[in-house]
This record gives sequence, structure tokens and C-alpha cells, in this order.
Amino acid sequence: MTEPADPTLESLRQRLTAFAAARSWEPFHTPKNLAAALTVEAGELLEIFQWLTPEQAAAVMSDPDRAHRVRDEVADVLAYLLQFCTAVGVDPLTALAAKIDRNELRFPVPGAGGGSGADVKPDVGE
Amino acid sequence: MTEPADPTLESLRQRLTAFAAARSWEPFHTPKNLAAALTVEAGELLEIFQWLTPEQAAAVMSDPDRAHRVRDEVADVLAYLLQFCTAVGVDPLTALAAKIDRNELRFPVPGAGGGSGADVKPDVGE
Amino acid sequence: MTEPADPTLESLRQRLTAFAAARSWEPFHTPKNLAAALTVEAGELLEIFQWLTPEQAAAVMSDPDRAHRVRDEVADVLAYLLQFCTAVGVDPLTALAAKIDRNELRFPVPGAGGGSGADVKPDVGE
Amino acid sequence: MTEPADPTLESLRQRLTAFAAARSWEPFHTPKNLAAALTVEAGELLEIFQWLTPEQAAAVMSDPDRAHRVRDEVADVLAYLLQFCTAVGVDPLTALAAKIDRNELRFPVPGAGGGSGADVKPDVGE
Repeated sequence: MTEPADPTLESLRQRLTAFAAARSWEPFHTPKNLAAALTVEAGELLEIFQWLTPEQAAAVMSDPDRAHRVRDEVADVLAYLLQFCTAVGVDPLTALAAKIDRNELRFPVPGAGGGSGADVKPDVGE
Repeated sequence: MTEPADPTLESLRQRLTAFAAARSWEPFHTPKNLAAALTVEAGELLEIFQWLTPEQAAAVMSDPDRAHRVRDEVADVLAYLLQFCTAVGVDPLTALAAKIDRNELRFPVPGAGGGSGADVKPDVGE
Repeated sequence: MTEPADPTLESLRQRLTAFAAARSWEPFHTPKNLAAALTVEAGELLEIFQWLTPEQAAAVMSDPDRAHRVRDEVADVLAYLLQFCTAVGVDPLTALAAKIDRNELRFPVPGAGGGSGADVKPDVGE
Repeated sequence: MTEPADPTLESLRQRLTAFAAARSWEPFHTPKNLAAALTVEAGELLEIFQWLTPEQAAAVMSDPDRAHRVRDEVADVLAYLLQFCTAVGVDPLTALAAKIDRNELRFPVPGAGGGSGADVKPDVGE
């Protein structure tokens, strides 16, 4: 039941699948429900930061209580993302590698001769 | 520039860091901004499902256009999660392994002698 | 301190402004923070429904505890929406009236002679 | 088809109900779907701000394109909130008035003799 020191994404995905199966939770784990749960948990991560100044936000991990909440919400987001991927049959690592490939073409590195002049980061999501 | 056939989470995290550094995007990548972006992208994934019936949602990957959007939004969510983890110094795999360990204690497997009787899945997020 | 039986949106907006001013919370109420808080609260409303079947969701208000949570989250969403509107100087009623006007042109009522044939609702958000 | 100069929340709620009925969209407007759509639209409002500095965010309405997007997303959030309230039979104005009443008790105004000393705003959501 204990995980080796260095878990992989795939080993954690399998643990989550076994965890849900042992509790008969598969009927709840539809793609739509899991996408909703993922959004809810992302909101809970954002909640930690919503009223913080940039300085407080940058130091979030030096507050033990907030640091624990951050790790916990990161885990929840990743858990629902992996369970969503299981439900729809998507490999998240392959999907991200393909997206980075595309973004390298869509957003060329600015030439050595000049800056981009942009004062707002473009949206890399499509 | 091409990724080997089997990328790891860590290799993708490093590609994302290099991608942002090459474009001087680090100033935008504060923990607070990245938590916001993560929530926005999770919402975009949910958007694909919002009006679908359970049947349509279950068949989402058999529609090529929807399947592409799903893969794309999964990639965006994972990208911002990894960049957030870089910004705050959290290892997402360790965080998730620890959370599963805790959840195995919080939600014992129902005994062989009887079901849980619950008709609603408990919230495993804390 | 008590509100008349029939509050208007504008009277509630003013109560929220006075409430925040009396507690010196204005510095926290930037447009960006309030947009984040709005998203977080919308997620908390969605959380109530995330694992419910369509039948359970339709009967949500017949469970007193869930009904209270629903009213509470509706109030939170509306509160942050009004405070956001105050921060950016937008009149939400005028904005919505204009949007409905536009949507009446974008989505004509299907003619009496035939259905639309669509099995998925279009996105009316732009 | 044109709305009088001063629409009320209730008149807009009724327009939205008639709009959906004329297009036979009621089957899509379950409480769960509408809570999901509300979250998605709140995320789209947040998206406008996600990479902006506090200064850029404060000036968001002086950029005509961003100002239009802000008004449009405010309208979408309010539309789905009203449609959600119709679906579950909640009066949003009454719910918010009751919440403000409760919050006035939960968060007393700091006494004249001293500040609260808090450097982080408490969460007024429950």
C-alpha cells in the first residue's frame, strides 16, 4: 500500500483507478463529472491566493498552513486530471508534448535583434 | 526540438520552463497568475461538456473535433499545473502520492459484509 | 440594519460597498481579485452538484442542507459580481439587456415550419 | 424587442426564460448544467485579467476591446446565474440580502479604538 520513493505519473494514475474501483466509485467518474470536479479543485487552489498581494503570494510556501493547502490542492487537481484522462482514454504526457510542439511554432522565440515590445503575455491556450 | 516517444512529467516541466524563459515570460508566471490560468483552462475543458447529455459526454472522443479540443485542454491544464508547481517549488507527484496515502486512511474500503449504503460519493478533496 | 422586504439589485450593491468600506476592505477589491473570487464561488456552487445524478440535482432544493448551501453560494456569486461591477464601473443590468438584444439577433427563433435539428445547444456566450 | 431604459433584474430574468423557451432550450437548462456554465463564464471573465499587472487591470475599461469583453462576460455570468435561480426556484436578491445580514454579524465593524491588525482579508464566503 505504500508507494516507492519515486512515483511516476502512470503509477499514480493506476493507484487512483484501483482506489476508485475498491470503493465502487466508477459510476460517479464520468468525463463530465470529473471535468467539473477538476474545475472546482482548481478554484480551491486559486482561493488560497485570491486576496494575497503579489508579495504575500510569492511567499506562500513559507507559511506552513498555506503550504500544506497548496500541496493538497495541487494533488487534488492532478488526481482529477488523471482520472479524467482515464475516463476519456487520453495520455496527458503525449497531449502536453504535442501542445508544446505546436506552441513552439505558434510563438517563435524573439530574434536576437529586438524585443517583442508586447507588454501583455499572449494566451497560449487555444 | 522533438520530444522522444516517451516523455516524462519532469522532462515536460523542464521544456515548459525553457519555453517561458526563451520568451521572457517569467514575470507573468507568478503563483497567483498561474493558479488563475489553471482555473480558466479547467473551465475551458468543462465547457466542452456543459450542454452534453451523459450519453454524448461518454462518446466525446468519437467526435474528432471534440477529441482534439479535449486533448488540447488537458495539455493546457497540465502545463499550467506544472508551471505553478515550478513557481512554488512543489513536486506534484510527491504531493499526489501523499494525498492518496491520506485518502486510503480517510476512506477505508467497505468491508466484505456490506455496502456503504451511500448514494452520493463523498468529497475526497479536503 | 434590516433591509426592506423587497431589495433591489442597486440597494444591495450599495450595501456591499458600505460593508466593505466600513471594514477597510477596498484595497483587496481590485477587479482582478474580484474576478478570481467570483470564479472561486461559482466553483463552490458547482461543487454541490458535481457528483449528483440528474435526478438528485433536480431535487436539490428538497434537501434542507443542500438548499441552504445553494442559496448561500448564489448570494456569494452575486455579491462578487456586484462588487466587480462597482470596481470597473459597469452596470450589470444594462450589460445583460444589451447581451440579450444581441442574442435575439444571433439566435433567431426557429420557424414554425420545422425544428432546428440541433441536438446540442449552441454556446450563447461569445 | 427593445427593453425599456431601466430594466430590473426580474424583467431580465423573464426575458431569459422566454428566450430559452422560444428556442426549446429548457431541457439543457438543468441546475447542474447551469452551475457548470456559470463557472465557465466566470473563468472567461477572469481570463481577461490573468496576465495583467495590477495597473493594467485597474485601467481595463480604458481599452475599448477589453471593456467590451468585460461587459459581455458580466452579462453572461449574470444570465446563467439568473437561469440557475429560475431552475432551482431561488430569489437571488432575497438570498443576497440574507447573506449580508449574516455577514454583518459575522464580521463586526472594527471598533473606533483600533484597527483589526489583519493583513489578509477574511473569506466572507462560507
